[in-house]
Amino acid sequence: MSASLRIGVIGYGYWGPNLVRNFAAGPRTKVVAIAEQNPNRRQVAQAQFPYIKVVDDAAAILADPDIDAIAVATPIFTHYELAKRGLEAGKHVLVEKPLTPSVAQAEELASLAAAKKRVLMVDHTFVYTGAVRKIRDLVASGELGRILYFDSVRINLGLFQPDFNVIWDLAPHDLTIMDFVLSQTLGTQAKWVSAIGVSHYGRHENLAYVTVGFDDELLAHVHVNWVAPVKTRRTIIAGNKKMVVWDDTSPVEPVKVYESSVDVQHIDKDTAYALNVQYRSGDVNSPKLDGKEALAGMAQTFAAACLDGAASPSDAAVGVRIVRMLEAAQKSLEQQGARIKL
Amino acid sequence: MSASLRIGVIGYGYWGPNLVRNFAAGPRTKVVAIAEQNPNRRQVAQAQFPYIKVVDDAAAILADPDIDAIAVATPIFTHYELAKRGLEAGKHVLVEKPLTPSVAQAEELASLAAAKKRVLMVDHTFVYTGAVRKIRDLVASGELGRILYFDSVRINLGLFQPDFNVIWDLAPHDLTIMDFVLSQTLGTQAKWVSAIGVSHYGRHENLAYVTVGFDDELLAHVHVNWVAPVKTRRTIIAGNKKMVVWDDTSPVEPVKVYESSVDVQHIDKDTAYALNVQYRSGDVNSPKLDGKEALAGMAQTFAAACLDGAASPSDAAVGVRIVRMLEAAQKSLEQQGARIKL
Amino acid sequence: MSASLRIGVIGYGYWGPNLVRNFAAGPRTKVVAIAEQNPNRRQVAQAQFPYIKVVDDAAAILADPDIDAIAVATPIFTHYELAKRGLEAGKHVLVEKPLTPSVAQAEELASLAAAKKRVLMVDHTFVYTGAVRKIRDLVASGELGRILYFDSVRINLGLFQPDFNVIWDLAPHDLTIMDFVLSQTLGTQAKWVSAIGVSHYGRHENLAYVTVGFDDELLAHVHVNWVAPVKTRRTIIAGNKKMVVWDDTSPVEPVKVYESSVDVQHIDKDTAYALNVQYRSGDVNSPKLDGKEALAGMAQTFAAACLDGAASPSDAAVGVRIVRMLEAAQKSLEQQGARIKL
Amino acid sequence: MSASLRIGVIGYGYWGPNLVRNFAAGPRTKVVAIAEQNPNRRQVAQAQFPYIKVVDDAAAILADPDIDAIAVATPIFTHYELAKRGLEAGKHVLVEKPLTPSVAQAEELASLAAAKKRVLMVDHTFVYTGAVRKIRDLVASGELGRILYFDSVRINLGLFQPDFNVIWDLAPHDLTIMDFVLSQTLGTQAKWVSAIGVSHYGRHENLAYVTVGFDDELLAHVHVNWVAPVKTRRTIIAGNKKMVVWDDTSPVEPVKVYESSVDVQHIDKDTAYALNVQYRSGDVNSPKLDGKEALAGMAQTFAAACLDGAASPSDAAVGVRIVRMLEAAQKSLEQQGARIKL
Repeated sequence: MSASLRIGVIGYGYWGPNLVRNFAAGPRTKVVAIAEQNPNRRQVAQAQFPYIKVVDDAAAILADPDIDAIAVATPIFTHYELAKRGLEAGKHVLVEKPLTPSVAQAEELASLAAAKKRVLMVDHTFVYTGAVRKIRDLVASGELGRILYFDSVRINLGLFQPDFNVIWDLAPHDLTIMDFVLSQTLGTQAKWVSAIGVSHYGRHENLAYVTVGFDDELLAHVHVNWVAPVKTRRTIIAGNKKMVVWDDTSPVEPVKVYESSVDVQHIDKDTAYALNVQYRSGDVNSPKLDGKEALAGMAQTFAAACLDGAASPSDAAVGVRIVRMLEAAQKSLEQQGARIKL
Repeated sequence: MSASLRIGVIGYGYWGPNLVRNFAAGPRTKVVAIAEQNPNRRQVAQAQFPYIKVVDDAAAILADPDIDAIAVATPIFTHYELAKRGLEAGKHVLVEKPLTPSVAQAEELASLAAAKKRVLMVDHTFVYTGAVRKIRDLVASGELGRILYFDSVRINLGLFQPDFNVIWDLAPHDLTIMDFVLSQTLGTQAKWVSAIGVSHYGRHENLAYVTVGFDDELLAHVHVNWVAPVKTRRTIIAGNKKMVVWDDTSPVEPVKVYESSVDVQHIDKDTAYALNVQYRSGDVNSPKLDGKEALAGMAQTFAAACLDGAASPSDAAVGVRIVRMLEAAQKSLEQQGARIKL
Repeated sequence: MSASLRIGVIGYGYWGPNLVRNFAAGPRTKVVAIAEQNPNRRQVAQAQFPYIKVVDDAAAILADPDIDAIAVATPIFTHYELAKRGLEAGKHVLVEKPLTPSVAQAEELASLAAAKKRVLMVDHTFVYTGAVRKIRDLVASGELGRILYFDSVRINLGLFQPDFNVIWDLAPHDLTIMDFVLSQTLGTQAKWVSAIGVSHYGRHENLAYVTVGFDDELLAHVHVNWVAPVKTRRTIIAGNKKMVVWDDTSPVEPVKVYESSVDVQHIDKDTAYALNVQYRSGDVNSPKLDGKEALAGMAQTFAAACLDGAASPSDAAVGVRIVRMLEAAQKSLEQQGARIKL
Repeated sequence: MSASLRIGVIGYGYWGPNLVRNFAAGPRTKVVAIAEQNPNRRQVAQAQFPYIKVVDDAAAILADPDIDAIAVATPIFTHYELAKRGLEAGKHVLVEKPLTPSVAQAEELASLAAAKKRVLMVDHTFVYTGAVRKIRDLVASGELGRILYFDSVRINLGLFQPDFNVIWDLAPHDLTIMDFVLSQTLGTQAKWVSAIGVSHYGRHENLAYVTVGFDDELLAHVHVNWVAPVKTRRTIIAGNKKMVVWDDTSPVEPVKVYESSVDVQHIDKDTAYALNVQYRSGDVNSPKLDGKEALAGMAQTFAAACLDGAASPSDAAVGVRIVRMLEAAQKSLEQQGARIKL
C-alpha cells in the first residue's frame, strides 16, 4: 500500500470541492482524479486543480488500479450504487452523510466492506470539530456527571431539498454528535425514535421534532426546521453535575460549561418533595477550542483508517446507526409520532 | 352592584401579594379582605396593608355579603373547592392558573358560573403583557400571513414543584399564549396533544416536550424544563409573510418581527421542487411595547367582566381549554407520546 | 456607644428610601428618624415605615442626642452644609455621592471629621457589589498581571440633571470603581485628568470623555453620555496576563475573565518589532458573583466604621479623591481638554 | 482609452490578492500584471492566476505602456514613491489606505494627479460596504435629524504593526467612515483633532483615544486598541431624531436604527432645566443591507473614475483629509492631547 492514500473524488458540486481541497492538502492523502457529470463544474475543478485529472464518468475512477480510495460527494440516492462499485473494485470508500437512504442498503455496504476488508467511512464532519471534541472530553472525563438529556435546535431559513425532508437534511448532524458523545463515549444505546413534522410548502416536511429514547432515563430531542427567521444551532448536554451549552452560531465562546446542578437528598421516587431539592449555580467556563478545520481532521482520519487500520468515529457502523435512526424517524412521521424501536 | 369591585383575596403566599397590590391600586377594584392560613404570612399581609382585614379562614370571606368577588391564589388542588364555594355564595371568582387539576372539575365550575350568572376567570397573566398583545395584533392584522407554527422554549434551573410535573407548572403559560394568539384571534382550534417527558429526580417529570396539532397544517411545540443551565423563554410565531421571535429574557428589544419568508411558485404538493422555492429576507423590526404591568391589566379586565359584563381573554372557556390540553398532555405522557384528541 | 447604630436619614426623594430600607433591615443599624421637606414624600415615608419618626426639618435630627449618625440623601449642593452641621453636632455622617461640589468643601469636611473623631463616609455603592469585589480580588491576587488600562462606557438615554453635567452625574461610579480596584488595591495613584465634552441641549454637557493618567503607563478612560440609544455599562480592566470585561447590563454572566494576553519577547522599547509579539487566547471564565444587595453591604460597613472603627473603601479620603478628579475634569472641560494635575 | 481598465497590481502580500481577485472579476477591470519582491509570494500569485504576468519589480509595470492603472498594496512607507512614479508614468493610481505617512506627501501626490489629469484614489474599503452606505442614506435623508456625535470603538487582540502605532493602523477606518457620513454627506468639516494613547509593549502606542471636533457642537470619538480581550467594532451615530448603532461583529442585524430622542422644549442655553426635557423611545429597526462585497464596489468605482471621470467617495482629496487627521492625531499624542487645528 502506498505511503500516501491516492484518492478519486466523485462529485464536484457543493461539497466535493471541500473534500478535494482537504485531501489535496495532505499530509497522507493525494487527490489523483475528480469525476463530475456537469461540464461547467468540470471546468471549475480543472481550473482550480490543474494538476488533477478531471473526468466525466465515475467509471474511470473505479477502474483505475492506481486509485486506493474513492470519496463520494453526489446526491444521496446515488450513494449506494457508487459505494458498492467502489468496494467491489477493492477501494476504500468515503461517503457523504447520510450513508444511504435506507438501512438495508447501509447494512449491505457495511457487510460488503467487511468482506472486502476495505474501509467504509461516512463524512460526518461535525465529530471532527473542536467543539464536539471538547464536549466529548467533558462527557468522557465524568466532569458533567450522569447525562440527563441532549437537546438540539438546528433551524434557519434554509435551502429546501428536493429529494428528502428536513430530517434527512439536518438531523444527521445532531444524531451523529449525539451518537459520538453518548453512544460511542458512554456506551449508552438509543432504544427508540419518534418524530412529528409538518410540510407547509410541498411534499417533504420542512419542520420536525425528533425524539430519541435511551436507557437510563436519558432523552434526546432535535428540532430541525427550514423555515425559521433566526439561524439557531444550540445544543444542550445536561449532566447532573455540570451542563454544556454549545451555540454554534456564536462568533465568540461557542461552548460554555455551567456549574449548575440540582441535588436531591433522598432519591426516593415515591416521596421526593420539592423541599429535598437544592440548586447550585456556579462559574461558567468557555474552554478554548481547537480551531483546526474539521474536514482536515476527517480527511486524515480516513487516511489513518485506510493506511493503518485505525479506528474512526464515523465508521460504517456509525453510518448504519445514523441511517437506522433516520429511517425510524421517517416511519414515526408516517405513524403520527409513534415510538419506533431501533 | 357597587361602582368599585369589592374583592377578597384567598391565599397570601407567593402570588397573592401581587394580586392584592394590583387590586388595591384600582381604579375599579378594592381589596376588603385577605384570608391566609399561615400566621407569619398573615402578619406580613397586615403590615403591608394595615387597612385591609386579614383573616385565617376563607369561610369568613365567602360568608361576607359585602364582598363581590374572590381571588383564589392557593395551591392548585384547592382551586376547585374554593371556586365552587365562591360561586355558590354568589361571588365572581378569579382563580390562579391553571384553573383546576382536571377537566371534569374545570367544566363543572364553568357550568356553575354560567348558572349563577357570575364571572369565572383565570389569571393567565401573560395574555395581558405588552409583548403578547403586540404579537396578537400582528397576527390579527394579517401582517404575518398564514401562521405556520408556534414554537416555544421555557427552560431554566427552576424550582421543582411537589404537587405536579413541569408541564402543569410551566406549559400553561405557553398554551395560553398560543390559545390567545391562534385560537382566540384566528379561530383555529387545537385538535390533538402529544407529550414526551422524563423524570430525573423524583416522581414528576422535570423535562417535557408538548406538541399541539391544529387544523390547517399548523403545529405548536413547547419545551418546558426545570433542569436547564440557561434561562430561556423564546417563542417563534412563524407566518408565511413575516415571522416573530419573542425573547422574554432579553432586557432590550424582546419582540422582533422578521421580514423573512419562503415563497413557493407552484404549490403542487406532488411536484414542488426546491428550484421553485424562493427566499426573502428583509428588515427586522422591534416594535415598542406597552410597558404597563400585565397584572394591572388583568385586574381591571376582571373588574370590567364583573361590573360591565365585558369579555375577557382568560375567561372560563379559556381556562377549561387550557386544562383540557394539560390533561391530554398528561395522558399522552403515560401513553408514550400517543396523540390525544381534544 | 449603643450596640446598634441609631440613624437619622435626611432626604426621602429618589435614593433616601433605599437607605432607610437597608438601614432598617439591620443587623447593626436602626433608623429612628427621617427628615424630608416635601409633604407628599413625608406621607409616603410614614406609610412605609409607620414606626419611624418623620419630620420636616433636618434640624430636629441634628439636635436629637439619641441619634448617632446621619445619612444625607439630598441634592449635591446641600451636602456640605448638612454634613458640616452633622459633624459639628458630634454625629457620624454618610453622604450620597459625590461628597460635595468642590474639593475645598470636601477637604474641609474630611478635616472636620478627623478633628471631631467622627466617621465621614460616602455612599459609593458600586464598591460594595459582588462584581466589583470579584474584580478587586482578581487584581489583588495578581491573576491579571500588571494592569494596562481601565476603560469604561456608561451611556444610555438618561435623565438630564438640572444642577450639573453628565460627568458629575455618572462618572463618580467609574472613578470610584477605578479608585477601588487600582489605587486602593495596587497603590497606584492617579496623576492627571483630562476631559472633553459637548452640550447639545442646554448649559450642561450631556456627553463627555474623561481620561485619567496613572503612573506606570496605566491609563483610564470613561465615556459618559445621557443621549445614547442603547444602555451600555461595560468596563474592561486589562492586565498583561488576563483581562476582565464587566457588562453590568447583562442578565447573565456579567463578569468574564479572558485568558488573553500579548507577550513580547524582548522588551526593548526602541527595537521591539511585530515579529517579537505573541498572542495568547485561552479559556473564558465567568465567576459566580455574590448576589447580596450592595447597599446592605454599604450600610453595615458604615455601621462597622462607626461602631468598631473599621476601615471603609468609601471613606472620607476616597470621597475627597473622587471630588478632586471630578473638579479636575470640569476644569479640563473648560480648558479644551488640557491635562489637569491632581 | 480601453473599454476595460488594464491594471498592474504592485504587492502581493496580505491585501494584494484581494485586489487582484476583485479586479480580475471585472466587469470593467482586468489585471495584466502583478509585481512582488518575495519569490514565495510570486509563486502563489502565479499558481492562483496562471494567465497573469508575475514580475519581481514594479518598474516593469510602471514601464508597460499597455497598463492603464496601478494598484499599490505595499507597506505604507513605499506608497509615496510608487504612486509618484505611477502618476509620472501617466497611469491612474489606487493606493492602499492610508495614502501616505505625511500630509506633505499626500498633497504632493494629489497635485501631481491633478496636473497629470490622472485618477488618484485610496482603497478606503469601508465606504463601499452595505452598512456604511445605509448609514449614509439615513444621514442624507434627514431621518436621523441633526447629528450630535459619532462614537466608534475598534478594539481587539490585534496584530501589532512594526512601522506605526494603532492610530495609523485602525483609525483610518473610522475616520474615513466619519468623513463619508458627515463631511461628504452633510458638508460639516472637521476642525481639530486630539489624541491620547499609551504604549505598553514597545515604541508604538497600542491603545489610543482620538477625538475630532466639528462645527456645530458635533463631536467624534474613536477608541482604537490592539490589546482588548473582546473584538468590538461598534459605531454610534446619534441624531436628535433617531440614532444608529452599527455592530460590525454581529452576524445578524449589524445596523439598528433607534427611534430614540431627547426633546427640549425651550432651547435656551442659560435656563434649560431637566424638567423641560422629554425622552422618546420607539421601535428599533434593522434594515436589510446590500450584501455585495465592498471591494468589488471599490474596484468598479475606480474603473468608473478612470474610464468615465466619475466621482469617488475615496478620491485624492479624501485621502489627503484622512492623512491630515492622522498626522494631527500623532502630533497631539506628542503634545499630551492638545487640540491640533486642521
